[in-house]
Amino acid sequence: MIETRLTERFGLRHPVIQAPMAFAAGGELAAAVTRAGGLGLIGGGYGDADWIGAQFEAAGNQKVGCGFITWSLARQPGLLDQVLARAPAAVFLSFGDPAPFARPVKDAGVPLICQVQTRRDAAHAIDVGADVIVAQGAEAGGHGEARATMTLVPEVADLIAARAPEVLLCAAGGIGDGRGLAASLMLGADGVLVGSRFWASEEALVHPNMLEAAVAATGDDTIRSSVMDIARGLDWPARYTARVLKNDFTDTWHHRLDDLRANAARESARWSAAWKAGDVSVANTFVGEVAAFIDGIEPAAEILERMVAEAEMRMRALTR
Amino acid sequence: MIETRLTERFGLRHPVIQAPMAFAAGGELAAAVTRAGGLGLIGGGYGDADWIGAQFEAAGNQKVGCGFITWSLARQPGLLDQVLARAPAAVFLSFGDPAPFARPVKDAGVPLICQVQTRRDAAHAIDVGADVIVAQGAEAGGHGEARATMTLVPEVADLIAARAPEVLLCAAGGIGDGRGLAASLMLGADGVLVGSRFWASEEALVHPNMLEAAVAATGDDTIRSSVMDIARGLDWPARYTARVLKNDFTDTWHHRLDDLRANAARESARWSAAWKAGDVSVANTFVGEVAAFIDGIEPAAEILERMVAEAEMRMRALTR
Repeated sequence: MIETRLTERFGLRHPVIQAPMAFAAGGELAAAVTRAGGLGLIGGGYGDADWIGAQFEAAGNQKVGCGFITWSLARQPGLLDQVLARAPAAVFLSFGDPAPFARPVKDAGVPLICQVQTRRDAAHAIDVGADVIVAQGAEAGGHGEARATMTLVPEVADLIAARAPEVLLCAAGGIGDGRGLAASLMLGADGVLVGSRFWASEEALVHPNMLEAAVAATGDDTIRSSVMDIARGLDWPARYTARVLKNDFTDTWHHRLDDLRANAARESARWSAAWKAGDVSVANTFVGEVAAFIDGIEPAAEILERMVAEAEMRMRALTR
Repeated sequence: MIETRLTERFGLRHPVIQAPMAFAAGGELAAAVTRAGGLGLIGGGYGDADWIGAQFEAAGNQKVGCGFITWSLARQPGLLDQVLARAPAAVFLSFGDPAPFARPVKDAGVPLICQVQTRRDAAHAIDVGADVIVAQGAEAGGHGEARATMTLVPEVADLIAARAPEVLLCAAGGIGDGRGLAASLMLGADGVLVGSRFWASEEALVHPNMLEAAVAATGDDTIRSSVMDIARGLDWPARYTARVLKNDFTDTWHHRLDDLRANAARESARWSAAWKAGDVSVANTFVGEVAAFIDGIEPAAEILERMVAEAEMRMRALTR
């Protein structure tokens, strides 16, 4: 058992939150993580109301939360009410200004988790009243920015200690096993947010070809890029890129973004078809540098329990 | 006391190596770190034979090692003999293929430390016979690459365990206090390499204006770029960039490298004059994301002792 302020405040057995990965994190995954003693979050992503509703149904009676891509939520703010009506375990916001949404979340008595990629945004998250700040490093899979987990976490820990010591802190980015969990606690986190490692679970909604690609990959095989967002016609703010497995598509376009935009119609159709078909040479596999530690696809509960047991063992062994 | 395979093998009191930072890490700093129980390394940098000789003299009777920028050493390999003749505590190679230099180092009975930025290069370092592999993440100050410390260290630890368990592993990049040291040990390292935090010491050879800029900076204020190398006319391989504090010079040129090359003569003169004068708006301050943890300039021994004491305290507190 690893007891932290996060396990106490949220009534968890393990200080581990599962990242609300767009498309991949449905109700089944979120429920599995909650059932196993962590906190599961449905990936509200770009905001498909019916899909989100169905995922809450799929989670059944397990208490799960929901995450949003903040700039996307701002375009259809009604989605937040829909989710709050389900009394979620938490609302998680990342990639945009959480200010407009903080009040309704807190008025509903729901914990507000704000993921940030810079110290500056951590200060803003404190200002808007975040209950938990997730400091996400660039090694993370999917969207993110440039700072590293190794320095962002302790820097935000210092900021919290100075300005709002009651706020909890989780580390995200590059945490795929017990070593990452133990390291995060040393850096000053109360827990961790795990994305890629749960993405590679039996309960996640991921094409088998992409899982296979992740198992085969090392940490050297990923890249942060915007080509997938351009190919999908998504209006991501320029500061955010996404970490994915390198493939023919990134090799072709990563250094030629203007050319890609000029060929957007053709390339967009090609990318989308490949995504559906699981053609990993064109559609990109959204996974972080922890691809190194993905050796197989297991139930989320096994991933979680091994991670915590490993972390405990490691901390004990190193302080004998 | 934190005892690891590194302290045992090298006869150190603390599992901390000071990075051989070009220009900044002279004999005085290296000697101070060795005297305080770590391992100090002179920054052989771009290879000025007279300067390196003078720094070994400045280190006096303290046992210190020497680091080289490998691609630069390849242009004047005679420097290695000069350094080996001084029976250094170690030879440290980074940024290039260590293969041509491994044999003479090992024949001299000197420990070979290879710094790597990818898993692929770690495998090569094992092949050439490295005694210590330093896995350096992108959060590091100065030159480096793209992988993060948080994932590269455990990935290389797994590689070493599988292929050459006698090889030691140090973490580098983003380690500026006891939290970083404790986290690195959890990730599987036998010790750490510390650059930026020792760069901000009384013994380092750094312009006071740059130290002042680092004290004022947060981790958000750095960038990885090539503009400084273009401005200095240095032939760095394209894969390596350097992390520095953002300033007017990076704001102007970072996204216009071809324009910078076209104006190289003028901008090079301007950058070099600013470097000498300590004009931090033009010349760049070489420091990593740990700038966040640089609150003042202290003797290297104090930095080292606090780091180790903090790490010990942290590991104990979290395993109570």
